Amino acid sequence: MTESFIIHGDIVYSKDLTELACYENGWLVCDSGISGGVYKTREEIPVRYQAYPVVDHTDCLIIPGFTDLHLHAPQFAFRGLGMDKELIDWLDEVAFPEEAKYSDSRYAGTAYRMFAEAMKNSGTVRALIFGTRHTDATMLLMDAMEKTGLVSMVGKVNMDRNCPDTVREESSEVSLSETERWLQLTKERNYSNTYPILSPRFIPACSDDLMKGLANIQGKYHLPLQSHLSENQGEVKMVKKLCPWSTSYGQAYDRFGCFGANGPTVMAHCVWSSDEEMLMIKKNKVYVAHCPAANMNLSSGMAPTRKYISMGIKVGIGTDVGAGHCKSMFDAMVQTIEVSKLYWKYVDIHAKPVTMEEAFCLATRIGGSFFGKCGAFDEGYEFDALVLDEREIRTPIADLSLKERLERFIYLGEYRDIKAKYVRGSSILI
Amino acid sequence: MTESFIIHGDIVYSKDLTELACYENGWLVCDSGISGGVYKTREEIPVRYQAYPVVDHTDCLIIPGFTDLHLHAPQFAFRGLGMDKELIDWLDEVAFPEEAKYSDSRYAGTAYRMFAEAMKNSGTVRALIFGTRHTDATMLLMDAMEKTGLVSMVGKVNMDRNCPDTVREESSEVSLSETERWLQLTKERNYSNTYPILSPRFIPACSDDLMKGLANIQGKYHLPLQSHLSENQGEVKMVKKLCPWSTSYGQAYDRFGCFGANGPTVMAHCVWSSDEEMLMIKKNKVYVAHCPAANMNLSSGMAPTRKYISMGIKVGIGTDVGAGHCKSMFDAMVQTIEVSKLYWKYVDIHAKPVTMEEAFCLATRIGGSFFGKCGAFDEGYEFDALVLDEREIRTPIADLSLKERLERFIYLGEYRDIKAKYVRGSSILI
Repeated sequence: MTESFIIHGDIVYSKDLTELACYENGWLVCDSGISGGVYKTREEIPVRYQAYPVVDHTDCLIIPGFTDLHLHAPQFAFRGLGMDKELIDWLDEVAFPEEAKYSDSRYAGTAYRMFAEAMKNSGTVRALIFGTRHTDATMLLMDAMEKTGLVSMVGKVNMDRNCPDTVREESSEVSLSETERWLQLTKERNYSNTYPILSPRFIPACSDDLMKGLANIQGKYHLPLQSHLSENQGEVKMVKKLCPWSTSYGQAYDRFGCFGANGPTVMAHCVWSSDEEMLMIKKNKVYVAHCPAANMNLSSGMAPTRKYISMGIKVGIGTDVGAGHCKSMFDAMVQTIEVSKLYWKYVDIHAKPVTMEEAFCLATRIGGSFFGKCGAFDEGYEFDALVLDEREIRTPIADLSLKERLERFIYLGEYRDIKAKYVRGSSILI
Repeated sequence: MTESFIIHGDIVYSKDLTELACYENGWLVCDSGISGGVYKTREEIPVRYQAYPVVDHTDCLIIPGFTDLHLHAPQFAFRGLGMDKELIDWLDEVAFPEEAKYSDSRYAGTAYRMFAEAMKNSGTVRALIFGTRHTDATMLLMDAMEKTGLVSMVGKVNMDRNCPDTVREESSEVSLSETERWLQLTKERNYSNTYPILSPRFIPACSDDLMKGLANIQGKYHLPLQSHLSENQGEVKMVKKLCPWSTSYGQAYDRFGCFGANGPTVMAHCVWSSDEEMLMIKKNKVYVAHCPAANMNLSSGMAPTRKYISMGIKVGIGTDVGAGHCKSMFDAMVQTIEVSKLYWKYVDIHAKPVTMEEAFCLATRIGGSFFGKCGAFDEGYEFDALVLDEREIRTPIADLSLKERLERFIYLGEYRDIKAKYVRGSSILI
């Protein structure tokens, strides 16, 4: 049930990449799931909201929830395992054998319930999620996500080549017809907060016909699309071999019509994007899902995040479960900052490190914008909020600013320190 | 009270850098605080231990506790703050102003109690800890650590130049006489598990006379010594300027007699050590405390951990609170692995990444060896153990090996998942 209420506490959100809006002892209005704005004093609250009940979170930090722009639900089961491999070997030896199990609906149901429960308890309020190639299992994932109250875009994966038989679809025709069947099923379910997103695995695992067919489906149904781009140097070479006509990995997606031309698009990783590819990402308004933990764990490399930000490309952050082991979006923000420091030191002295304010903005306002007016407390934005309990972070220092408290929580907080969580104004029990 | 007992559960520890000793459903004997060995079956336990009570931790992972080879107790208060600076600015603007507060014993007492409580609850069983320059506050820190039951070496810091008045000692004479007073006080306290360790801050903050005096004290009392080495490129240059006669930062320590000649020595960071310095570290049997989080947070760089390991140098891991924000030694192990992957990719393709088994060995057996026979369950080793509760790590996958369960816990576990903790055979309540 969406409610209308006023939250009282220490409110912080991103105004933009460089500036935080801070309201110590502030008042945040939720009007039927939509932000009614933030006010410095109770008196400033507009008369039409004055009678709303007050939820008292005095002394707690209140921030927008996070958008996890890239993760794989079927890899949740083996997170933290097999972290000594690079991408292609890791897919073949760790990820694909596990994903094959999702042909079994009982296994998928159990696994996805655990995944959804963890998502519910996390700081994430919105997410872009990969399932497996299995339509039925993907419906179970969507059912489970719908129940959490979180807002998600979930994808049945398409893959018809260069992968083990157990996860490969028979043909591009089968993959496309299964996609149509899946879209029909999602329509019948009439979900209120779970949406389909087209999810070609990546070019190495998708034939030309499949890619073209997906572009058609995207245009036909006005769907968003998510995939992987330039994660690993070996993968980039593989795409060059598979699409010898392409000028870049991104241009291969673009030629098939899957790079923003037919609908909103997110590409995960973008570690080894060429200048040409970056320009195409910008031109086509493709979102970059930055996944620093996975990029370290699979020895993929360090993405040029500063460059993307400077170019005005929309960059969000992904935990990328399971190549990413991150326990939370808090960790993913810290990793974003840390990797950008090493990138600055070792790759490009002109690419200055990502600041805390920027990482926070990527994880909230910018990532959230893929869902519309989300990720901030501006009036008219959807009301997604976290209430943070700082008691576990013991210290004798009492006089911290809201900015400092936010920085500290990003570095030290865990999901178990989230006291309350709201999505579209509804309280998500944790 | 040290006890004698037998623990039953799934036991894992490092045999050496590459091999784990794994005992599923094994039996681990604690004989008056000393390991009586690990046995595959109850029957194999030697007759002299057979009557000891059994502590049942069936299905739990049981591993040696961690040695945190480098951290700063007075920086615990501001962990996770001011992470956008490099070393020298960070010291001047963040660390030193906070450390100045420890001239106030009331503040120090409160802060150190919080620190000690967190150490008690962590996976750390042994630690090398920096205090501040203040003798009285350092005694409060030692009192607090003694109460935890953990084994620690704690240092009153020496610093007599190139730092703000508030943390600088008046002269080398004062610094040395305060050190003697402090050593006398520690002797009077008659601690059972807390030991003094000489702690010159680093060469930039210690005059030549002070360094020479500390070398004398070290030889006189047979004390260990800890300091910082080649953390940041600016710092290395500063040392070259202060000690123009030195061939390396390490050689400067060595010339003063503070590089292993007068007692066991640990140097933290060693990010920018030259080949000559590395050879001296090896020759002098100096331990390297690898602090990957701090090295990222302060943009110091990536230490050549693989090179140290290959050379046979003893490398342990440090959380380096507060430049390190790590919530635990689990995080520090993961960061060790991650940074080594980026080092391999960006700096030296011959320096292959640190494996999970190696990181675990650094955090237990190798780091622990600074304290003697510690960090493993070999017969005759001091009995330090953690019992890990994996229930928070929900998954439908049931048939994992002990190695896999250990890897997963390292990546996903938190201090709140530690079910029991033993130091020298005593149960440390958490």
